[in-house]
Amino acid sequence: MRVVVAPSGFKECLEAPDVAAAIAAGVRRADTNATVDQVPLVDGGEGSARAMAAATGGDLIPVTVAGPVGQPVPSHFAILGDSEPRTAVVEMAAAAGLRLVPRDARNPGGTTTFGVGELIRAALDHGARRIVVGCGDSGTCDGGVGALQALGARVLDVGGNDVGRGGDALLDVAEVDRSGLDPRLDDVEILLACNTHNVLTGDQGVARVFGPQKGATPAQVERLARAMDRWAEVLRRQCGVDTREVPGGGASGGLGAGLAGVLGARLVPRFQVMLAHVDLDSRLAAADLVITAEGAIDFQTTRGKVPAEVARRAKRFGKPVIALAGTIGDGAQSTYAAGIDAYTGILNAPVPLAEAMHRAPDLIADAAERALRLILVGASLTAAAPTIRLQPFAA
Amino acid sequence: MRVVVAPSGFKECLEAPDVAAAIAAGVRRADTNATVDQVPLVDGGEGSARAMAAATGGDLIPVTVAGPVGQPVPSHFAILGDSEPRTAVVEMAAAAGLRLVPRDARNPGGTTTFGVGELIRAALDHGARRIVVGCGDSGTCDGGVGALQALGARVLDVGGNDVGRGGDALLDVAEVDRSGLDPRLDDVEILLACNTHNVLTGDQGVARVFGPQKGATPAQVERLARAMDRWAEVLRRQCGVDTREVPGGGASGGLGAGLAGVLGARLVPRFQVMLAHVDLDSRLAAADLVITAEGAIDFQTTRGKVPAEVARRAKRFGKPVIALAGTIGDGAQSTYAAGIDAYTGILNAPVPLAEAMHRAPDLIADAAERALRLILVGASLTAAAPTIRLQPFAA
Repeated sequence: MRVVVAPSGFKECLEAPDVAAAIAAGVRRADTNATVDQVPLVDGGEGSARAMAAATGGDLIPVTVAGPVGQPVPSHFAILGDSEPRTAVVEMAAAAGLRLVPRDARNPGGTTTFGVGELIRAALDHGARRIVVGCGDSGTCDGGVGALQALGARVLDVGGNDVGRGGDALLDVAEVDRSGLDPRLDDVEILLACNTHNVLTGDQGVARVFGPQKGATPAQVERLARAMDRWAEVLRRQCGVDTREVPGGGASGGLGAGLAGVLGARLVPRFQVMLAHVDLDSRLAAADLVITAEGAIDFQTTRGKVPAEVARRAKRFGKPVIALAGTIGDGAQSTYAAGIDAYTGILNAPVPLAEAMHRAPDLIADAAERALRLILVGASLTAAAPTIRLQPFAA
Repeated sequence: MRVVVAPSGFKECLEAPDVAAAIAAGVRRADTNATVDQVPLVDGGEGSARAMAAATGGDLIPVTVAGPVGQPVPSHFAILGDSEPRTAVVEMAAAAGLRLVPRDARNPGGTTTFGVGELIRAALDHGARRIVVGCGDSGTCDGGVGALQALGARVLDVGGNDVGRGGDALLDVAEVDRSGLDPRLDDVEILLACNTHNVLTGDQGVARVFGPQKGATPAQVERLARAMDRWAEVLRRQCGVDTREVPGGGASGGLGAGLAGVLGARLVPRFQVMLAHVDLDSRLAAADLVITAEGAIDFQTTRGKVPAEVARRAKRFGKPVIALAGTIGDGAQSTYAAGIDAYTGILNAPVPLAEAMHRAPDLIADAAERALRLILVGASLTAAAPTIRLQPFAA
């Protein structure tokens, strides 16, 4: 049996290559003859720069930048191997990710993407002619203003003063001055690898959908939503771009809209960008079974998460797909319609989240073994009782 | 597909019929055409009297007895329907179960089986000629002395005084006086439905194996072990029965040894007694798939728990068996060799035990659905790729 193991990382817990290795170990315990093809996947979020550098034989360049609350943080970007044009991967989470925001400072009204701009500048310093900005796992909601400031733009309030740090500062934003922008930006292609379901404004806008998990109170969420409206209005008036409902404009707290509006960056579906380098499709085509995984399977999974993307591609080849999840949340059953034929959790006992995360590699391996054994039971069923008529999977 | 659902209850959480119903609901969600045969199983422990009365169209007779710490507790026993000879099921847990011991009084050195003797007396009052005493889930370790006292025996210490309540009182037991025993006991057959892996004394004796989970400290465990040694010596000297290593002698804190030694009760493997009434074997023979379940799957499962017994019987007919478990504990993989082909947990997220128990019916149904979907994936695998060579299950 040929098994393609194509998981995401488990957020704030385990990176994709480690998840893949754990699943592979479990699969081999259940079926010692299985051929396992590990394809750890990154979506632009945490771990993406490192993974893409490794996947292409490129380099990971260390840079210290200003973190989301202004403190210096050790960060990095990737220069991909053998890339033409010379391509850098800037992972926004490595400079402004939620993980870099101290728990007692998780207020997306005050955090900045300044460090992302610094990474882009560093990539320019290294001769990049194409810069892929991986979005995801952000701890910010500043519309990308911090990144633009780091690249030389001035963003001014109604009094003509530079706006401060964070999304709250955009409540009275009035103008963007692009005259000081790094001139090298004119000759570089910037691609934002986005979840295109994320938009800047409205009921499904970034403040309302992601504000709470970044630490915003309900009142802050509404304030940030107004700030994003105002920022969109400035971008429309001064840059001639309507970013309000642009797919991906809400990526990474509005970084998508800011870079698209002011720098002319292209917003691209993240898997289209990130998976171009791993030849996923041909590996899926050779599989008997596909196993994907993510930290949580829930109503968000079908909104562009790795397992849904893997299932979508696998189903083009008619391949069965199962998913392992750290947590099975509300709406998980919606993934059936997206091509995930079955899923299962990794927990073995009632334990606190911290303990489950600590033991994740073992829990994932054990869960993979259990899932494969159930699949083997199913295979034995049809062998023993060929008259069983299986139901097609219901949506 | 014909699915036999033969679970145990989940201890201190959900009785077997409710577990079976939840599994059946999940199975039907995954495969709307499945035929589900529910065979909830009891092992003599909690819920056995009620289940056996229901299964045979018998009666559940309410009786108030002295509980394990002496307080009156509402209890019951069953008179089985259409039984010949007239048969009662006395569930020891309904009079001296761990659940009846307040958490702050969980000391098996002080708890008594007196109420079990009262239930036996009540069964005699109702004309029973055979009494099945279901063991399991006990909160006691008194060697059955309390039950014997309730039936009229005197158990004396070296000073000739009645020993007090609980296992600690047996540290200086010296004599049993059977002269006051209820004379009706001479004409009744008493069967103890036991886990025959449980013995009275030694390293694998009841005090050392079960004392801790009944609340004994390490020092108390050793004291109780000495008390059981002493009680075995009295039974040998006065009743001519060596109960030290008799299979089942350690059942329910030594209740097995006490009733076998003093009353001549027979110690019978519990499934042999309890499953005689549900025709399990012929139902297993008709199954395509067998699903069993228990609160925990771990190293104890193969020591005579429901899932292992179901697997043993199902394997006689070559049927695949899967198990659902609230908790997957150390040594769970030992169940593979016992005929459980695959197992899976019911938890969907890191939650406290209390919450998991509260939500058990939903969690069980969801887990059954997920497991069956994995099995259906396996069935589709062989249909799509008949050349896949499946591994036999390894022990």
